[in-house]
Amino acid sequence: MKIEEALEESKKVLNSKRFEHVERVTDTAFDLAERFQGNQQQVGLAAALHDYAKDMELSILKDWIIAHHDISKDLLAYHHELWHGPVGAKMAEKLFLIKDDTIQNAIYWHTTGRKGMTKTEKIVFLADYIEPGRDFPAVYQAREIAKEGLNQACHYALTNSIHFLMSRQQPIYPATFQAYNDFTKRLLK
Amino acid sequence: MKIEEALEESKKVLNSKRFEHVERVTDTAFDLAERFQGNQQQVGLAAALHDYAKDMELSILKDWIIAHHDISKDLLAYHHELWHGPVGAKMAEKLFLIKDDTIQNAIYWHTTGRKGMTKTEKIVFLADYIEPGRDFPAVYQAREIAKEGLNQACHYALTNSIHFLMSRQQPIYPATFQAYNDFTKRLLK
Repeated sequence: MKIEEALEESKKVLNSKRFEHVERVTDTAFDLAERFQGNQQQVGLAAALHDYAKDMELSILKDWIIAHHDISKDLLAYHHELWHGPVGAKMAEKLFLIKDDTIQNAIYWHTTGRKGMTKTEKIVFLADYIEPGRDFPAVYQAREIAKEGLNQACHYALTNSIHFLMSRQQPIYPATFQAYNDFTKRLLK
Repeated sequence: MKIEEALEESKKVLNSKRFEHVERVTDTAFDLAERFQGNQQQVGLAAALHDYAKDMELSILKDWIIAHHDISKDLLAYHHELWHGPVGAKMAEKLFLIKDDTIQNAIYWHTTGRKGMTKTEKIVFLADYIEPGRDFPAVYQAREIAKEGLNQACHYALTNSIHFLMSRQQPIYPATFQAYNDFTKRLLK
């Protein structure tokens, strides 16, 4: 699948504001891939499809989570905001025949992060966090850190996400904490 | 074992400042047990022994963690500050023949918390956090919240502990964020 085709497919199922976000994430992912020697094709395709499932009915997302053994069921116990990544990864496989672990995992984990992220996963995760349309207090420093190091920037993004969720008394998805610990231990070394 | 005897034993192996802390935690645990209908004998004994292993050589703590199958080995990958609780619970058993899950778990988990804490565990955890010798920004509000609810106060303490550890770019022990999520989900209901 070509990246342009992936963007066209995302455009069909997303509202216009969301699709503009997807375009910016794709551009940002290209920039990060160039900066950190990532695979342009993989990050481009994952970025173009990362929110593919985001405007779908929650009942559809829930059905997909239940129907597919390789989507973690524990998602159902957390906020539905976390569902579109894992379902989107599976939709990329079923609808667009993308059976590529690197691309699928980058879609699957783009909201939560996880322990042991690949470079492609990190780039899509970070691109989604810092794309130029984002405007929240931590994003400015995140963009600065992203000029220096991919791991440092992911660590910063995860730290701020956890601070934010705790400030709202929200649960933290376990993979997010595991990602935080993983980056923390790498950076401590 | 009587609580006075437990305090005497802790006094023998702890420096004087630490022992004074143990006395204050024990008094605070009694107060909390009265407030929240806890078991005075269990919280008193657990509080009196909670830091029993804290002044021991790290090499001894490490040996105990390795030697006992019911102490989680993953502790060794985290800060040694977390080791004295689990080892103290085992020392209470081996030295003082305290084979009581409620008391031992309250000692084991007093630093980290965990998912599914018993009332005794919560009381000792919270008493350790808010005893009157503590002086850090969050402790004043923690004491206020502890007048209202045990779960609310534990949730607040865990939230602040995680904020603090992240501000120092420290890893978070998994049981701590599992405890945070557990209290968060209970309070959301």
